[in-house]
Amino acid sequence: MQSRYFTINDYPQGTPARELFELHEQALPALAEDEVRIRNTWLSVDPYMRGRMSGVKTYIAPFELNAPLEGAAIGEVIESRAAAFPVGTKVRHMGGWRDIAQLTGDQLEPLPAFDVPEQAYLGVLGMPGMTAWTGLKRIAEMQEGDNVLVSGAAGAVGSLAVQLAKAKGGTVVGIAGSPDKLEWLESHGVKAVSYRDRDATELTEALQAACPEGFDVYYENVGGTCLEAALNTLRVGARIAVCGMIARYNEATPSPGPSNLAMILIRRARMEGFIVFDHWAHYPEFLGEVGPQVESGQLDYTETVEEGLERTPDAFLELFEGANRGKMLVRL
Amino acid sequence: MQSRYFTINDYPQGTPARELFELHEQALPALAEDEVRIRNTWLSVDPYMRGRMSGVKTYIAPFELNAPLEGAAIGEVIESRAAAFPVGTKVRHMGGWRDIAQLTGDQLEPLPAFDVPEQAYLGVLGMPGMTAWTGLKRIAEMQEGDNVLVSGAAGAVGSLAVQLAKAKGGTVVGIAGSPDKLEWLESHGVKAVSYRDRDATELTEALQAACPEGFDVYYENVGGTCLEAALNTLRVGARIAVCGMIARYNEATPSPGPSNLAMILIRRARMEGFIVFDHWAHYPEFLGEVGPQVESGQLDYTETVEEGLERTPDAFLELFEGANRGKMLVRL
Repeated sequence: MQSRYFTINDYPQGTPARELFELHEQALPALAEDEVRIRNTWLSVDPYMRGRMSGVKTYIAPFELNAPLEGAAIGEVIESRAAAFPVGTKVRHMGGWRDIAQLTGDQLEPLPAFDVPEQAYLGVLGMPGMTAWTGLKRIAEMQEGDNVLVSGAAGAVGSLAVQLAKAKGGTVVGIAGSPDKLEWLESHGVKAVSYRDRDATELTEALQAACPEGFDVYYENVGGTCLEAALNTLRVGARIAVCGMIARYNEATPSPGPSNLAMILIRRARMEGFIVFDHWAHYPEFLGEVGPQVESGQLDYTETVEEGLERTPDAFLELFEGANRGKMLVRL
Repeated sequence: MQSRYFTINDYPQGTPARELFELHEQALPALAEDEVRIRNTWLSVDPYMRGRMSGVKTYIAPFELNAPLEGAAIGEVIESRAAAFPVGTKVRHMGGWRDIAQLTGDQLEPLPAFDVPEQAYLGVLGMPGMTAWTGLKRIAEMQEGDNVLVSGAAGAVGSLAVQLAKAKGGTVVGIAGSPDKLEWLESHGVKAVSYRDRDATELTEALQAACPEGFDVYYENVGGTCLEAALNTLRVGARIAVCGMIARYNEATPSPGPSNLAMILIRRARMEGFIVFDHWAHYPEFLGEVGPQVESGQLDYTETVEEGLERTPDAFLELFEGANRGKMLVRL
């Protein structure tokens, strides 16, 4: 059987070009003991993948050049030599960026049994959802009634963070760019603030207008101007959960950091970076808490879907243009 | 009785000029009920006082223009209408920057009973010592064997932080400037690294050479290049206690922050600002732990002493020139 997959042929500087990604095809070898073959139905593209294209080991090894890229995916077992995963089993795994994956049993997770569309396990009940929950609950230690600020608030992680925060009360403010994102936020009871055409001073003023008392929690997805403005609006004892700094991921040369970092001292604030994979042991706790909210429709989630394996690189690149609302997915 | 005291006549931009400080004299009113008169013997000057000269409320109110400045001081009660503080009592209080202070009983602390020179309660057993201990123990949660980096390592706080860290094992590295400071550090088993004539990249390399495994704890007194280099040398799960950023205190316009703040994310590090006054309830715990070490001579502390009330502004300004080793004091 043939598998089609994407590779990269170089570690790019700056914004990756579409040409970086090459589609290849190979014949898969016969299944070894404990291996399964999976027809992927949904592929995930995520901002963290940019880090794996840098050629430098950060918290995760870089992608290997000219080898199949990796990423979360959902698929169905179509051939199996692993007793735990008979043909027909729906699974989640990291063999994305391809149509047919061949993996061993220890690389697979069976999908949980909530009555939700299967791709939810790549988004609201997958890594982005778990990331939103972990940042608020375990890193920022959000308390009932805290005022919460979220940047990238209409993205895959941010759109869940604002809703989880909102459910616990307090003023929740989301920073986003396009009018439809701002509208989505407002329709969910979140005060929406645009970063567009605003420098750090202007963004600070807009945040202060939205929440004059300041923020107890800042959920950071973006960095840059958002971080600088957020630092100006912290309350004493505020906690910043640093989930990502997407504004910086494609920079060829580093930009200066915020000039007001001393606010960490003045407000006795705590800023902590986290990687959701470190917290994966708490996935069942997350699932038990958030799964029923998704099943009941209480938690709204949005998907932006590209169609067909060929569009995977485009879907990925659109993440950095702010083109997606909610989780960016590829349907095969 | 006359009291001589310093005032400032303006909130300065940038490095304060010596002319900012004016010496005045006034006749003190007769003592009211519960008031005492204190002849100060030692005055403290500290970097945080620069913040009180900014005219902006940060974590503490600004100094009032043309009113006596405030700061920690040690003195002896020479006249008393407060039963708890009879004549001859040695006290610590915030009526510094003057020779004779007139205060109420609730503004005084009797000196603890350790067999140490009285000015130790302004330094190693006072605010700077408590700051070093709080940052390491309560903020950075230093563990036995942690590798610890301290900037401003020969200053009032840093020189105690390196020794407290050293006593718990692990590699301890101190950043300082002048040769005698570096020598002092080395003589205490601390690896000394100079920041002089080094940019962030060069300082990073020097720190990596001193401690190739990287740091679990960074005790931040300085900011600027030191912070940028330190961020490059953190281990996963590192904790940064932000005690001060003296490199920035005299800046008229803010400088950009570190361009590598994303290391917080990559290393899943935590950065937390603190103000020692918030932790003052733990002062007895600190005193019980560190007092005996000072009494026995186990903990070495250094003082830089200026003589006479008139020199108080000079002593203060020298803090920003890196002129002091250990605690800067004025003896009256």
